[in-house]
Amino acid sequence: MSKGLLIVFTGNGKGKTTAALGMAMRAAGHGLKVCFIQFIKGGWHYGELDAVKRFAGLIDLHVMGKGFTWKSDNIEEDARLAREAWDFARTMIASGLYHTVVLDEFTYLLHYGMIALDPCLDTLTNHPSGQHIVVTGRYAPERLLDAADLVTEMHAVKHPLTSGIKAQPGIEF
Amino acid sequence: MSKGLLIVFTGNGKGKTTAALGMAMRAAGHGLKVCFIQFIKGGWHYGELDAVKRFAGLIDLHVMGKGFTWKSDNIEEDARLAREAWDFARTMIASGLYHTVVLDEFTYLLHYGMIALDPCLDTLTNHPSGQHIVVTGRYAPERLLDAADLVTEMHAVKHPLTSGIKAQPGIEF
Repeated sequence: MSKGLLIVFTGNGKGKTTAALGMAMRAAGHGLKVCFIQFIKGGWHYGELDAVKRFAGLIDLHVMGKGFTWKSDNIEEDARLAREAWDFARTMIASGLYHTVVLDEFTYLLHYGMIALDPCLDTLTNHPSGQHIVVTGRYAPERLLDAADLVTEMHAVKHPLTSGIKAQPGIEF
Repeated sequence: MSKGLLIVFTGNGKGKTTAALGMAMRAAGHGLKVCFIQFIKGGWHYGELDAVKRFAGLIDLHVMGKGFTWKSDNIEEDARLAREAWDFARTMIASGLYHTVVLDEFTYLLHYGMIALDPCLDTLTNHPSGQHIVVTGRYAPERLLDAADLVTEMHAVKHPLTSGIKAQPGIEF
């Protein structure tokens, strides 16, 4: 049996977005098209952006949020942008153009209640046959984990930012 | 404070090698050189190999083991090949040519006692200044975790291979 999977990388450890990036490049290496949607602007820097450019025509990168950080004082405006971002993601999923759709840092929209869980789970579990969806971010709701085919929890056993070492190019970004 | 980190991705979940691959491509995206050494032959397939080729001159990929799987009946031959592979890795680390050296699936050599832990830890913690080392694989010895600056345990909450879904291109390989 071969099917389109719903994959979740969650937990407080490093490697969630990085693993999704590795999967995207691996799929692109097979010549398969990937739609990579970032739900938090500023999460990526030059390193990732340049790497993805090498897969032009195979990995389509979209940065949502127009600068919002989900920590805004304007909750209504944040919620509106979140709904817009999710509408865009749904359109990409439904398009059937992609082997894999990555929803990077998407869990925060659910965690902060900016979009409703039920219709979201409906979309994520009824995507085009053979298409994979990868969701990353902390605080993945229990029901998203229940609905997923593959879940890895990245657990931070040790993290250098907690021991006074500053973020470095090629490591943190 | 900025220093060369020893990073370990361990645990039974998916995403260890994938996260290392993502880190390698991110570093390469910064124009930084990466040496990616695979200690288990056959772990990679066309997808990764093609993806890495797009970073020619930045990511140097080396496949060690010449076909051994660490499950051989010839333990002496396995141990000899393991030592050879580790000698090669030490040379690459000491060369100072690389921003990041990835030792993919390296933990098995330690877990199965094919190379000695003490001199290995000595090399991994006394690498050239500013150079990062990434080690992946299950069963990372406790003392390796103690020595590391960053440890993420990839914990398999759910895995599709346990629920009858076969491995698929762009997902498992």
